[in-house]
Amino acid sequence: MKTASVVLSLAFVGVSAFAANDMQLLKKVKESGIKAIPQSQLELLKLVDDPNNPITEKKVELGKKLYFEPRLSKSGLISCNTCHNLGMGGADGVAAAIGHKWTANPAHLNSPTVYNSVLNKVQFWDGRSPHLEDQAQGPIQAGPEMAAPKELVVARVTSMPEYVEEFKSAYGDKVKIDFKLIADTIAVFERTLVTPSRFDDFLHGDLNALTPAEKEGLNLFVDKGCVSCHNDIGLGGTMQPFQVAKKYKFASLGGFQGDKNGMVKTPTLRNIEETAPYFHNGAIWSLADAVKEMGSVQLGINISDKESKKIVTFLKALTGDKPEVSYPILPVSTPKTPKPDMN
Amino acid sequence: MKTASVVLSLAFVGVSAFAANDMQLLKKVKESGIKAIPQSQLELLKLVDDPNNPITEKKVELGKKLYFEPRLSKSGLISCNTCHNLGMGGADGVAAAIGHKWTANPAHLNSPTVYNSVLNKVQFWDGRSPHLEDQAQGPIQAGPEMAAPKELVVARVTSMPEYVEEFKSAYGDKVKIDFKLIADTIAVFERTLVTPSRFDDFLHGDLNALTPAEKEGLNLFVDKGCVSCHNDIGLGGTMQPFQVAKKYKFASLGGFQGDKNGMVKTPTLRNIEETAPYFHNGAIWSLADAVKEMGSVQLGINISDKESKKIVTFLKALTGDKPEVSYPILPVSTPKTPKPDMN
Repeated sequence: MKTASVVLSLAFVGVSAFAANDMQLLKKVKESGIKAIPQSQLELLKLVDDPNNPITEKKVELGKKLYFEPRLSKSGLISCNTCHNLGMGGADGVAAAIGHKWTANPAHLNSPTVYNSVLNKVQFWDGRSPHLEDQAQGPIQAGPEMAAPKELVVARVTSMPEYVEEFKSAYGDKVKIDFKLIADTIAVFERTLVTPSRFDDFLHGDLNALTPAEKEGLNLFVDKGCVSCHNDIGLGGTMQPFQVAKKYKFASLGGFQGDKNGMVKTPTLRNIEETAPYFHNGAIWSLADAVKEMGSVQLGINISDKESKKIVTFLKALTGDKPEVSYPILPVSTPKTPKPDMN
Repeated sequence: MKTASVVLSLAFVGVSAFAANDMQLLKKVKESGIKAIPQSQLELLKLVDDPNNPITEKKVELGKKLYFEPRLSKSGLISCNTCHNLGMGGADGVAAAIGHKWTANPAHLNSPTVYNSVLNKVQFWDGRSPHLEDQAQGPIQAGPEMAAPKELVVARVTSMPEYVEEFKSAYGDKVKIDFKLIADTIAVFERTLVTPSRFDDFLHGDLNALTPAEKEGLNLFVDKGCVSCHNDIGLGGTMQPFQVAKKYKFASLGGFQGDKNGMVKTPTLRNIEETAPYFHNGAIWSLADAVKEMGSVQLGINISDKESKKIVTFLKALTGDKPEVSYPILPVSTPKTPKPDMN
């Protein structure tokens, strides 16, 4: 009996030690500036909502249609979802975005994920856009992306009575459907695309939500300093000094230099395993390689293969639950709908 | 009292006369060879199932993922749904299909709808394919479409453990995932894309399912002879003599001549209002114009503007209920997944 009791005590001490370590880790992570996606629906809504463009069910439904609407592009073939595919981590899985007339992004820029993009403090790689409402206006008009002038987009949408009715239903009968409102409505849908993960459960105090290997990776992630840029709720989404322009081994590809101050928007790490290839120009396909490259380029440290692998194990725990999206049936074109233009 | 009673009797006679006309119309339609989509789920399953490739829930779920899977294309950007968009009547809304490297279909062929394609007796405009399992192999490989060699498709799919597991779950642990099986699985999903409409309710005896104007259009549709090609459950889907090659005013566009006997697959008219532009080369955008053109070209008759408009009123009653499709979350690429190739 005595032996058994000793074993039991030891086991107990072991468990307690683990739990104490976990508590310590959680404390360290929180102090590092990382935050959880709120568990309460009300808190979450407060986080993602914009009082200037409040989320309503009708706007979300309409915004979803517009998000999947290829007729917002000049050709009638490219929708927001083409490059920000909700089935592929909210991105497109290619190095540089491909748009109208099979044109690659001129700066070889990689499409960032739409998931959790509401958590970014700014939008676009160079952070030139303050919020999703503004961001959504860009790719629709950009020549190498959807290539549609504002007037064409408005003419297409307003040519379909079903869209007009839905705008009235969402915004009131006197609504003026202009380009800004179309982009605003897409943004409302995008604001709902938040993906809580097991890591959030851990942050909320469920110490068993991560495996020991994931915790080890998380500990390294904080200790190595990754967290200095990848912090807050998005584990990214803020402007940071862009060492990549100078030292990154593929820096010449596309020649992107960040904003005028050499700053770049740190990508969110949520769902990062789903959004290869990595970096602004999509030149690195392996997440482990990306981690090592970031160590040397941004942090000036060496991250070993073994450490990188452990960090990747943690990063995979950031893959979140995606909102279920029923594929929308889009309104029917009418004789007034401007025709697709492939040129 | 007497007056009221007379009025009532007259009204009654009126209703009866209408009902008798409707019964007559229904009889005429049935005798013309048009058939309804079965109401019973068991009958419907028997209709769309293929004993060589039976429908199961697991195959449908996997087939849906593959249908939305852009990594089946060489570029990683084009899926079945790109040209056969489930939100746009199962087609793409452009004249000639656009594929890999922004290439238009060399014969300027228009993408047919995937909805109710299981009801076609043959597949492709020239009917060269006997069923969906065979058809699905074509566009994936075709240079101007998805441009992916079989080996690439198999390598992509089998590089992702989630797909391998789903194939095992659908077909058994010893499954060999080859190109044919991938296409077969897509076809199983497509077999479920049947869209019953109010017209089917009418055919099943609900005489009030169509409006008087729609019935008038239906009557004309049968009387004018449209039904001679657009018959059976699909209101189309059989090979018919292709007068269009000779007399159609846009025949030179693309130069398609039908099969070696000058026959062409009659398109289904189900959801036809959603799938402009019309004809094999997508040269006519107005459904009313298409009806008139078919009258003169195929039937050798003149259909007036007024008659055409009435027929279109009926055709719009063929717009059916689409199955609800939850947008699939696709498996994550792995280091073994062959990379996208834009060239």
